[in-house]
Amino acid sequence: MMLGILGGMGPLAGAQFLARLTLLTPAERDQDHLPCVLWSDPRVPDRTAARLGTGPDPLPALLRGLRALEAAGATAIAIPCNTAHGWFDDMRAACPLPILHIVDAAAADLARQGVAPGPIGLLATEGTLAMRLYQQRLEAAGWDVLVPDAATMADVVSPAIAAIKAGAVGPAGLPLRAAAAGLVARGARAVVLGCTEIPLGLPEGPLRDSLGVPVVDTIDALALAAIGWARG
Amino acid sequence: MMLGILGGMGPLAGAQFLARLTLLTPAERDQDHLPCVLWSDPRVPDRTAARLGTGPDPLPALLRGLRALEAAGATAIAIPCNTAHGWFDDMRAACPLPILHIVDAAAADLARQGVAPGPIGLLATEGTLAMRLYQQRLEAAGWDVLVPDAATMADVVSPAIAAIKAGAVGPAGLPLRAAAAGLVARGARAVVLGCTEIPLGLPEGPLRDSLGVPVVDTIDALALAAIGWARG
Repeated sequence: MMLGILGGMGPLAGAQFLARLTLLTPAERDQDHLPCVLWSDPRVPDRTAARLGTGPDPLPALLRGLRALEAAGATAIAIPCNTAHGWFDDMRAACPLPILHIVDAAAADLARQGVAPGPIGLLATEGTLAMRLYQQRLEAAGWDVLVPDAATMADVVSPAIAAIKAGAVGPAGLPLRAAAAGLVARGARAVVLGCTEIPLGLPEGPLRDSLGVPVVDTIDALALAAIGWARG
Repeated sequence: MMLGILGGMGPLAGAQFLARLTLLTPAERDQDHLPCVLWSDPRVPDRTAARLGTGPDPLPALLRGLRALEAAGATAIAIPCNTAHGWFDDMRAACPLPILHIVDAAAADLARQGVAPGPIGLLATEGTLAMRLYQQRLEAAGWDVLVPDAATMADVVSPAIAAIKAGAVGPAGLPLRAAAAGLVARGARAVVLGCTEIPLGLPEGPLRDSLGVPVVDTIDALALAAIGWARG
């Protein structure tokens, strides 16, 4: 049993996924942990740009990574990038291994945290919003997905994600917290950090806690899904 | 160009190496980062136990990881585990790729931080100390290596490393800081965190800064060596 991680989108989110997978696994020593192979290819074309029609298709690079992970011995795949899940069906068709879906992992975490059906907030990339990745899978379960308005996306959320991709993790915290708080003010009973860059800027701690509602960190949610897979 | 990372020893140190490599790389966007493949196999037998004669040989597992990284397309290797470098010559003999040496990376970082020849302190595993990995490479350059006494190793350093491997990162900080301060009191003009678990327990920040001498974090030192390799 070996988990293949299709990472690099961004590279810090992939590294953080492996760190959180490690910390969330009950373990007393190195040998208790899940073997993993992480393909961190930051050259994968930008997923949001592709979906908005302003950049090349990432699918060939995604499939190259999946083939490398399969060749290295992976027996299941986790992809710590929400926007890449816009190509989930293509990847599943091309890859014989089971692929965990990050939106299903987020839904499981909403349920684990006891979030009842009703309005929830979503912070994500422009690409994820344009593809309605969360709406497709969450609205069937009774959660209504509130998203930031266009001005907040352009002025706050997208710049914060770009800053984190450039390594400026700290300055992204307050703007992301403000965008999340705006969703709570509109009635969201929980907030999903639906881009794996966002938990790097708004990590566990007082700033996140100050929102006063449950927060789904999609890095942690995917790590918990992987731990569940490993336990069979 | 793709960096192969032989990780999993422990898994948190391997993840942290990839995170620090990412943060230390000058980059504006995902695509500016170095492609990596990380083999995180926590089942590698304990390196210190093997060297002390109380556990199995890790070399077969290390070579299996190197072969997987080579097959995945790696063009150089970094190993974020100091103790594993006790098998460096065997790995180099078996692997056609260049392997960065973590003690050479630490020496380069001592020089980068302007640490003059003379006494320096080393915190490391019992295995690394028994193999004299640092003494062999640093004493030729004029640095005298001070190490904790046997009681401090048994009561403080080794338990702190074990705690971090079990995920208890926070409680390890003060004991590791005390062990490092003991070396400074004996005349060390810098302290090398010569086990990649140790920077997880004594991260950048006030506790580390309170030592009042330069600190070589061997996760960061190896990341800087990898960035230097990538730049040619």
